[in-house]
Amino acid sequence: MTQGFSFSQDACDGAARACTYSTPHGVIRTPCFMPVGTQGCVKGVFPQTLAASGASVVLANTYHLLLRPRLEVLERIGGVRAFMRWQGALLTDSGGFQALSLQDLVKVEEGGIVFRSHIDGTTLHLTPELAMHAQRSFDSTIAMALDECVPSTSSVERLRTAVERSALWAERSIAHWRKENIEGKERALFGIIQGGLNLALRRLSIERTLALGFDGYALGGFAVGENAPQRNAMLERVAPMLPANQPRYLMGVGKPRDLVESVACGIDLFDCVVPTRSGRTGQAFCFADEDTDTTRLATRNLRNARYKNDVQPLEQTCPCPCCEQGFSRAYLHHLVKAGEMMASMLLSAHNLFFYQRLMTRTREAVCEQRFAKFFDSVREQHDDGHNPDA
Amino acid sequence: MTQGFSFSQDACDGAARACTYSTPHGVIRTPCFMPVGTQGCVKGVFPQTLAASGASVVLANTYHLLLRPRLEVLERIGGVRAFMRWQGALLTDSGGFQALSLQDLVKVEEGGIVFRSHIDGTTLHLTPELAMHAQRSFDSTIAMALDECVPSTSSVERLRTAVERSALWAERSIAHWRKENIEGKERALFGIIQGGLNLALRRLSIERTLALGFDGYALGGFAVGENAPQRNAMLERVAPMLPANQPRYLMGVGKPRDLVESVACGIDLFDCVVPTRSGRTGQAFCFADEDTDTTRLATRNLRNARYKNDVQPLEQTCPCPCCEQGFSRAYLHHLVKAGEMMASMLLSAHNLFFYQRLMTRTREAVCEQRFAKFFDSVREQHDDGHNPDA
Repeated sequence: MTQGFSFSQDACDGAARACTYSTPHGVIRTPCFMPVGTQGCVKGVFPQTLAASGASVVLANTYHLLLRPRLEVLERIGGVRAFMRWQGALLTDSGGFQALSLQDLVKVEEGGIVFRSHIDGTTLHLTPELAMHAQRSFDSTIAMALDECVPSTSSVERLRTAVERSALWAERSIAHWRKENIEGKERALFGIIQGGLNLALRRLSIERTLALGFDGYALGGFAVGENAPQRNAMLERVAPMLPANQPRYLMGVGKPRDLVESVACGIDLFDCVVPTRSGRTGQAFCFADEDTDTTRLATRNLRNARYKNDVQPLEQTCPCPCCEQGFSRAYLHHLVKAGEMMASMLLSAHNLFFYQRLMTRTREAVCEQRFAKFFDSVREQHDDGHNPDA
Repeated sequence: MTQGFSFSQDACDGAARACTYSTPHGVIRTPCFMPVGTQGCVKGVFPQTLAASGASVVLANTYHLLLRPRLEVLERIGGVRAFMRWQGALLTDSGGFQALSLQDLVKVEEGGIVFRSHIDGTTLHLTPELAMHAQRSFDSTIAMALDECVPSTSSVERLRTAVERSALWAERSIAHWRKENIEGKERALFGIIQGGLNLALRRLSIERTLALGFDGYALGGFAVGENAPQRNAMLERVAPMLPANQPRYLMGVGKPRDLVESVACGIDLFDCVVPTRSGRTGQAFCFADEDTDTTRLATRNLRNARYKNDVQPLEQTCPCPCCEQGFSRAYLHHLVKAGEMMASMLLSAHNLFFYQRLMTRTREAVCEQRFAKFFDSVREQHDDGHNPDA
């Protein structure tokens, strides 16, 4: 493992595990959710609020930051963490996912990805080498190899090409990463596994990627077309093939229940825009039973007229800036209806706190060997309709 | 003066004055700027941030709150202060200004204002009696009489009608206000002077309104069509006609320099959307010289490319959440360009802190009998082009 980093498993319960990942920018207790700050900013949430929520890692995106504010600005300022005033750890995605999400503006070539900027139409050649150099300059705690991400339900041929290309780029990524290493300022580099819903290709991708010796491994190519049962079936087979003594990161997943289901397969790290994006559309994630040891989940759509006169906070015992200051559901309903950005601010903060609390409860359940019961209670929402807004 | 309220002049320097207005919801030191929270929310700024900025009064709007969330919701919840979690004082405008700003949806009749809701098209008959009843239910610290506001440059006939109607409504307002008074929960009611740029009509309006015996007096009908020299010329004549032993409130004004110019005429209270609206368009108000006792003003447009690599905070010594956390101008530039709501949040908070700091410096200058010099330095920005962005 790279200097300055260490990884240890604190407990496990079935395939679920609780680990400690020490980095030069703080300790990460897993399972861990990483808030998404694509452009160097978690939408609507101050860094100090992220810290208060218990977030230890924030995610940003190489492609977006290369276009704006651009590499030279971030180099001058000393990286993304300094730029956005975030003292915790930073994980940067490489830009491979944007080749999928911005596909109309993209051409994937053997040498790398050619983007037509979504901002001004200029061309960006994102090679593995540039992705590595950029993430060094960004002061990323954890960098990601450049990969090619395709829809998980693509044809075998398409999936195979992506696996092969990702493996080649992984090789070039790690070579350049090592070349640019600065002693005393070592950072982690994760490889990314592709292969969609094809088990043989996932196995091939794992074989090719693990051979290169990364600091951790990510499962890419999920949350891009498949449904949850398909994903879980694949994760159950694939996650155990990843080294037990290194972090396992499932990219882009997901909703609260998805996270716990993935933990059940052995995943450690997550990122997703759901808590902030949902906050901006008036949706709050809550625990349905605050006073029990079960963990039924409730999703509240604050736009719903049922909240018009509801003087309760979202949750009585939630320590987030929204609940803790006593804002009522009635007020949140009003803010959402009135189009006030304060609604997005309060609900995004609440949801990020919720995700951290969910991960903490999950970790406790693993450590206390009661993960199976916990897992059942999380799934209950969907099974018996206890969701108050269902 | 109404029970629970007291007003005293602490110092004066020329016509400028520094007063203390004690209310059941806190002490207001003047000159005082009141942040605008039209719909029961100051856009993008948490109540605790308002309190930290030194704001003692927040403004909300009767018309908007009557339409949404509606009177019955606010009655059930115990008023606007409880609803928005604001512990300081609350001033509510009556809705007279909306008859002007939403004129396509409005018919002004002798009995009151008939609004077609800008939300759902339903009809709202805003009478003086309803305006008073609503503001009682809102738990407003300071309520405003219902007035008719017309453009300041309207014809004499139009201005005269507005003055007469405002006087009649003021009479009905105060009568109903007294009728609904609850012992031990007395609140203040201010009258509003109209008359546009016509001195004789201003004098008439003052005469008619003062005769009714309000707790304070507001100058309405400014910032609705005239330019700053026209306004200042009128304020110089009109402000001294208002009782010295009661608060004087200039409605809807203005930019930083406008406030100081109005203080020079004897105004105590202000409200304006400029600090938050400017924040949402990427503009920051700053002191140009932080280390001197002068107060040149600088307006920074963070969208400007000059800030791309500027690692300084907006101001070194500003205690706002933006400057204090060390966000650089380069980062603010990035956030504005990237369309992140964080830009609005940080700049709105900074601007509200700036307005409070400006009022504090103004008060100090009055108390220390150096207002004239202070006034000159504030005006310097516009006179000599020292504004770094000019």
